[in-house]
Amino acid sequence: MSSNKMERTIYLEDVPRKEALRQLLHHFRTPREVEWVPTIKALGRVTAEPIYAHLSMPHYHASAMDGIAVRAEETFGAHEQRPKQLVQGESFEYVDTGDPIPAGYNAVIMIEHVRELAEGRVEIIEPATPWQHIRPVGEDVVSGEMLLPQGHVIRPVDQGALLAGGILSVPVVKKPVVSIIPTGSELVQPTVDVTPGQIIEFNGTVFAGYIEQWGGSPRYYGIVKDDPEQIKAAILECAETSDIVVLNAGSSAGSEDYTVHLISELGEVFTHGVATRPGKPVVLGKVGDTPVIGLPGYPVSAYLTLEWFVQPLICQYLGLTVPSRAKLDVTLGRRLVSTMGSEDFVRMNIGYVNGKYIANPLTRAAGVTMSLVRADGLLIIPSESLGYEQGEKVTLELYKPVETIRKSILFSGSHDLSIDLLSSLIKERDQDRQIISSHTGSMAGLMAIKKGEAHVAGIHLLDEQSGMYNVPFVRRYLKDQDVVLVRFLQREQGWIVPKGNPHHIHSVRDIVEQNLLYVNRQRGAGTRILFDALLAEHDLSSDDVRGYGREMFSHLNVAAAVKEGTADVGLGIYSAAKALDLDFVPVADESYDLLMSREFYESEGGQLLLDVMVSEAFKIQIEQLGGYKVKDIGQLIPLL
Amino acid sequence: MSSNKMERTIYLEDVPRKEALRQLLHHFRTPREVEWVPTIKALGRVTAEPIYAHLSMPHYHASAMDGIAVRAEETFGAHEQRPKQLVQGESFEYVDTGDPIPAGYNAVIMIEHVRELAEGRVEIIEPATPWQHIRPVGEDVVSGEMLLPQGHVIRPVDQGALLAGGILSVPVVKKPVVSIIPTGSELVQPTVDVTPGQIIEFNGTVFAGYIEQWGGSPRYYGIVKDDPEQIKAAILECAETSDIVVLNAGSSAGSEDYTVHLISELGEVFTHGVATRPGKPVVLGKVGDTPVIGLPGYPVSAYLTLEWFVQPLICQYLGLTVPSRAKLDVTLGRRLVSTMGSEDFVRMNIGYVNGKYIANPLTRAAGVTMSLVRADGLLIIPSESLGYEQGEKVTLELYKPVETIRKSILFSGSHDLSIDLLSSLIKERDQDRQIISSHTGSMAGLMAIKKGEAHVAGIHLLDEQSGMYNVPFVRRYLKDQDVVLVRFLQREQGWIVPKGNPHHIHSVRDIVEQNLLYVNRQRGAGTRILFDALLAEHDLSSDDVRGYGREMFSHLNVAAAVKEGTADVGLGIYSAAKALDLDFVPVADESYDLLMSREFYESEGGQLLLDVMVSEAFKIQIEQLGGYKVKDIGQLIPLL
Repeated sequence: MSSNKMERTIYLEDVPRKEALRQLLHHFRTPREVEWVPTIKALGRVTAEPIYAHLSMPHYHASAMDGIAVRAEETFGAHEQRPKQLVQGESFEYVDTGDPIPAGYNAVIMIEHVRELAEGRVEIIEPATPWQHIRPVGEDVVSGEMLLPQGHVIRPVDQGALLAGGILSVPVVKKPVVSIIPTGSELVQPTVDVTPGQIIEFNGTVFAGYIEQWGGSPRYYGIVKDDPEQIKAAILECAETSDIVVLNAGSSAGSEDYTVHLISELGEVFTHGVATRPGKPVVLGKVGDTPVIGLPGYPVSAYLTLEWFVQPLICQYLGLTVPSRAKLDVTLGRRLVSTMGSEDFVRMNIGYVNGKYIANPLTRAAGVTMSLVRADGLLIIPSESLGYEQGEKVTLELYKPVETIRKSILFSGSHDLSIDLLSSLIKERDQDRQIISSHTGSMAGLMAIKKGEAHVAGIHLLDEQSGMYNVPFVRRYLKDQDVVLVRFLQREQGWIVPKGNPHHIHSVRDIVEQNLLYVNRQRGAGTRILFDALLAEHDLSSDDVRGYGREMFSHLNVAAAVKEGTADVGLGIYSAAKALDLDFVPVADESYDLLMSREFYESEGGQLLLDVMVSEAFKIQIEQLGGYKVKDIGQLIPLL
Repeated sequence: MSSNKMERTIYLEDVPRKEALRQLLHHFRTPREVEWVPTIKALGRVTAEPIYAHLSMPHYHASAMDGIAVRAEETFGAHEQRPKQLVQGESFEYVDTGDPIPAGYNAVIMIEHVRELAEGRVEIIEPATPWQHIRPVGEDVVSGEMLLPQGHVIRPVDQGALLAGGILSVPVVKKPVVSIIPTGSELVQPTVDVTPGQIIEFNGTVFAGYIEQWGGSPRYYGIVKDDPEQIKAAILECAETSDIVVLNAGSSAGSEDYTVHLISELGEVFTHGVATRPGKPVVLGKVGDTPVIGLPGYPVSAYLTLEWFVQPLICQYLGLTVPSRAKLDVTLGRRLVSTMGSEDFVRMNIGYVNGKYIANPLTRAAGVTMSLVRADGLLIIPSESLGYEQGEKVTLELYKPVETIRKSILFSGSHDLSIDLLSSLIKERDQDRQIISSHTGSMAGLMAIKKGEAHVAGIHLLDEQSGMYNVPFVRRYLKDQDVVLVRFLQREQGWIVPKGNPHHIHSVRDIVEQNLLYVNRQRGAGTRILFDALLAEHDLSSDDVRGYGREMFSHLNVAAAVKEGTADVGLGIYSAAKALDLDFVPVADESYDLLMSREFYESEGGQLLLDVMVSEAFKIQIEQLGGYKVKDIGQLIPLL
């Protein structure tokens, strides 16, 4: 931590992304380097000039059939009733497919049409036309012919044509070398053993993967500490030896963000700050003739900005167009707010429900790598927009094939670890199908089914009056809809506490009386409803509970808060406590059931879900998680 | 060449392709092997089981901003008019983004909102809410959370999430080893120096490229002679050490086609012959538990059958769905005939003309690798169809992005080497644009413009009456259409003859009088029209010319026939003679001009074509070809 706050005087610009890119590309119209590679190793490379054939293919007149070579003139008049006899070595020769046509012959008769009379003597019953069943020289490739234009990405079949044309090596554009310099004193190489304050350096691996996929040659420089002299040395060395340099992070305006200062000192800065969310703190510049790009540290920001600025630089070097993603029109399942003046990039999940593609945003936090892992598509909200209303139509860029998205099972509602297991087992049966889940809580899940925005909702809603789970809520909110409620799991809810239960918590009263720090779930979550019911049972109010206002969106996040010691206790399921090696004090068994429209229930996807749910494989995995009872799973729960 | 014809008794089956595939896949539901690879090397690999996080990310409560860590309770009431003072070490600590929150603190105030009074003393003017600007443990990844399901193809961003979750190595499905055994005594390794009867072995390289792209691990065995014992040894060795074995060729029913005999001897044959054109002679079988696939030798047949049978085997092994190609509805520019009873696979060129996608077939010969190189898409004619009429709508599978196809310039008409040069230069200016040319001859080109089936036609049509080129034909056939004729090249036509012009050919009379063997061009070709005009000029008829009936589709093919000695002379352009190192006797200078609709001429593509045509780069390349005069190029020729 720096105590010198005097350098915090730089402010970021708000340059439109496309304008920043235009300027960047404009600065680097340098001639690309060419290298010769053996044709057999040229797969995926880009031709640097047009390639002409050296040889013809075939390079001799070749028989196109197994049969006999003849002189067509000598076959004229042959007929079923008046066969012609031919003599080997005089008027015919045997040829197999690919054999050269012996000198003096000009047609081939298929062996099936030849009657063999004796050794060296045959009979034919139809005439041959000149050149029939002969592949003339150059039928495929003629010497001197252009096989490939410049700027062509070589495919396997192109390698075949090149080799057929006698081209054993090809001039291709050199892969631009992209150096990756991770900076940060807090960074450590990937490990399973970290201490607080250490951050695992994984952005560099992700960059390297994309750079390779885009046709560049990534070079990982290794972690550099937050020391301006060391970073300067790294930039200078890489600018000398690479075609593009990527620095990560230190691109913002903080006290240890040296990138912009160092690039201006060593070269020139074109842009510092683009009008995007996330991705704003980016530095675009050059040192010598080498583009140097400073990317922000948060993973999502880093990968988006890499794509915006480094991919086009690589493509420009190779002479290729930046490939565009497939697009899809979707209906927004939720309202989305955006700030005027900057483009917003929102990772989205998509599902095909009731004949419509419904899209919902994943978390917009730039630090959440999993939001990109889980995303089906990307919504770009233009800088002049304030966002979109629920139900509006928008166009997304797709991260996955639309076939896969169309088969996804859209899950809403309460979070449970078993849903991921179901998804993985479904994918095992049908590679293109999986569960896309958003952890919205039971009530939101129920409403998503009501509004036709999800296929399945996981709900565990305790009705205080009747003490019954789920059925009263379905009756109340979905009375006119044709839905089914499928028995899923009985699961234990309980107090998630540190190992040994140091505060001896056994009831909600223990929490309130000791004034312990609680960690809560979001509004509408079944677990929160249960907690409220427990409070009511003991005549307590939410005001009596310290930490009631701190909301988490999943059982695992509640458990993580307890594990870290920022809460003394939370309410949640056994498997979450177990996953983080915490103790668990059972409070109640609850019914965690699956709500779906009858239409989905009867569909291929619904039946596959049912099949997997009742499978032995699922039961075994559920037992390993612990804290569940499997009884009557897959059966329909009467709603009337 | 074998003389033992007694083995030619096997007949090929006509098994429907999909049925053959179903049977094949059904035989190989063996458990796949799993291997552990370092996460940083796992790009593109397929997870063998669900992957759960070991670590949370962040694994400590981290500051999300540069600023100060505070206790939220101590900031309540802070206001512009009533600032609160905080003391470093007592009530605040400086934190940078990513720093751990010091023990006892529970919120972060951004540095921009902090007023620094003196060393160690600050003032704040708004309260903090608990947990603001803090990334709680597990915000991104929670320990125990499923990061990836099984069967997931690992992308760069997934590598990031895995490393963030403390996963340093991952269980992935082993890449299936696919052995490639090229067989044939005529095969030689790629070379520039071949003798008649030798065939360059390039299929193996093409197979290896596709197998790698599909996720397999290709292993090239090396060429095996047509000797059953040697082939048998190769099959046995590869069946032992690989997951899939590919033999090429020898899969048909000829005397040296050993594949089917050897596989039945060593194991089992499921299918010999599928109902497709091309690709019929395929052998599907197994030796031990290893699938052994015999593929036909012709390149197009070989690559199609590889895709039909080997790609699904690889995908099944990996647990992936075979990816499907994008599709496009097109209008057929030509009639297409197909045989009932077998599926037909036709390589097609596609252009976007007058608001319609027009598709034309490339050659259907299975030996023509270039037909796949040049193809934009593939038409599959079902086995029960007799083909399609011109103008019918059909659906193609695309080999190229539709954006590229949409920008292609569709060229029809007379063949000239300069068109390939134009295309390569156009691609240099706009990577997504190129010329797709079909060599149909001048008259067919003119008709294609008339019918709106091409953007540009290259024509050199001599009007015998007037002695004028092109203009009379455009006036006659396109009188009501808004077309333009653009001056292109003056080119020399002449006699293409062997080096030294051994028959002293100077006029058409020399050919007829010596009864020399001529090689002709197809009907409607400008060169043929010129030849006919030369005959007429000398009062000769086509019956006087030996070889008049042998038709070639390009200047290069005519030159190749002369080069090979299967013709004594042909008529063609200088650059073709030069490319094959032949002699050339000039006969006439002709106008080779470009005909196009005014709409195309004025479009972006048309103007780019014009720009390139008049460029210095094009002129230099044209001079290198030789035999052309460049005068008034790019100017409009008056048509009235």
